[in-house]
Amino acid sequence: MEIIRTPRMMKETSRRLLTQGRTIGFVPTMGALHEGHLYLGKSARSENDMVVASIFVNPTQFGPAEDFERYPRDFEGDMQKLETAGVDILFVPDVPAMYPEGFSTSVEVKALSEKLCGAFRPGHFNGVTTIVCKFFNMVLPTRAYFGQKDFQQARIIQKMISDLNLNVESITCATVRESDGLAMSSRNRYLLPAERKAAAVLYKTLQTAAQMIETGIEPRVISERMQEMLMAEPLVTEIQYAGIYDPETLDERRATGNRNLIAVAVKMGNTRLIDNMVVGL
Amino acid sequence: MEIIRTPRMMKETSRRLLTQGRTIGFVPTMGALHEGHLYLGKSARSENDMVVASIFVNPTQFGPAEDFERYPRDFEGDMQKLETAGVDILFVPDVPAMYPEGFSTSVEVKALSEKLCGAFRPGHFNGVTTIVCKFFNMVLPTRAYFGQKDFQQARIIQKMISDLNLNVESITCATVRESDGLAMSSRNRYLLPAERKAAAVLYKTLQTAAQMIETGIEPRVISERMQEMLMAEPLVTEIQYAGIYDPETLDERRATGNRNLIAVAVKMGNTRLIDNMVVGL
Repeated sequence: MEIIRTPRMMKETSRRLLTQGRTIGFVPTMGALHEGHLYLGKSARSENDMVVASIFVNPTQFGPAEDFERYPRDFEGDMQKLETAGVDILFVPDVPAMYPEGFSTSVEVKALSEKLCGAFRPGHFNGVTTIVCKFFNMVLPTRAYFGQKDFQQARIIQKMISDLNLNVESITCATVRESDGLAMSSRNRYLLPAERKAAAVLYKTLQTAAQMIETGIEPRVISERMQEMLMAEPLVTEIQYAGIYDPETLDERRATGNRNLIAVAVKMGNTRLIDNMVVGL
Repeated sequence: MEIIRTPRMMKETSRRLLTQGRTIGFVPTMGALHEGHLYLGKSARSENDMVVASIFVNPTQFGPAEDFERYPRDFEGDMQKLETAGVDILFVPDVPAMYPEGFSTSVEVKALSEKLCGAFRPGHFNGVTTIVCKFFNMVLPTRAYFGQKDFQQARIIQKMISDLNLNVESITCATVRESDGLAMSSRNRYLLPAERKAAAVLYKTLQTAAQMIETGIEPRVISERMQEMLMAEPLVTEIQYAGIYDPETLDERRATGNRNLIAVAVKMGNTRLIDNMVVGL
């Protein structure tokens, strides 16, 4: 695995690969890798000539009160995992290279960025779309891989690609879960043992909602049941949202449709957890 | 000259050219072409394997009270001129193809976009950067050509390219002028005969300011002299700005520097005219 540390070298490398007619699969990450990331890497490996992964903890997608400083970092462990997953090139730029003094451009996907998580993390998705646009321009991927756990992020990036006519196919890979159903996340390591155990309530809530959709119950009733289930868990300290949404617009559904996004975001102490499921009728 | 009308066809064509290792020079325009545009085309012709020009009157860069509807359109004349200038491909997408229903992404270069013309045309430069970013992603140019008459636009696009790590070299070509010094502009045809004659005051004002910079006079005094000269012309109905600026930051200069932007924007009746000059010390 080749390590590239500068935007210039990354751009030269991807230009060269493209003129050689090679396809590039790209897996952008913030490091602290888990099975979910490795599944993205393996998907990229099976569908492209070359696989580029990046590790960059992007300061602009963290709010001032969020966990940028304490976000887990494990570069040595990450390198080994990516090597094993068959990644060819690891791109690890530093913050000053990505945001030089005077940096002042932003890419914004309006409407979608303000809903669900966006309502609780103002500016978060603008930070995401701007950095992902930059990475796309440096890595020039044929395909880019995102996890479904961050459904809204994947949806917003798809919209950015389509609106800005970017030359990338974005691929959303299934969420990888622990044995009790908890979605893999770098932030799970923040959980105290009791919280970790209690966190299984998110997946149980999604499963219950999915069954209710299948039996034709209306979204309002399902959302209420979801809130009840989450509130019944004393270690859930805040429910940010829990309900049934349109997977295209992210608007709350009044009636179930062909595809329905069931999504939740809660806090357990200082740790914010999200999860979702998309179910047909 | 090949005419391409859809984003899909444009993307396929530029992809193919790039994998063939050919360089692409790009001249984005809003049509109503004059000698200034053709100079961009000739520069692109001499420096690239292939030349792509576009004609698209971009609605999002016009304010609600501006001249989008009456902006001059002359497709037949434009085609002939571009053919003569040696353009290989003319890209003429329509508005629904560029802004399909639900379009919601914008690219913004903060600070620079609010100064000078930006203060009088809110949202204008966001419209410019968003559409230029889209064109870059479709045309995949090696080099893109902009006229110096729109100095602020060229500066903002350079900043977008650098901040977003776009794979384009932007080239600013000298302003082409009429025999009395008036900068070529598609909007000059709005001028009544008396206004057209009076419009030479812009270039005279720039020349006077350039001479004053050379003799070491301070910017404040030069700006006052510029205002006086413009106010002395009765057909100038509004002076939006006139002064000496830093060509990097577009901030007003207190003392002259190595490079100085002399810039003016006025209205003559309903017609807005801008011009500028960059002079060293």
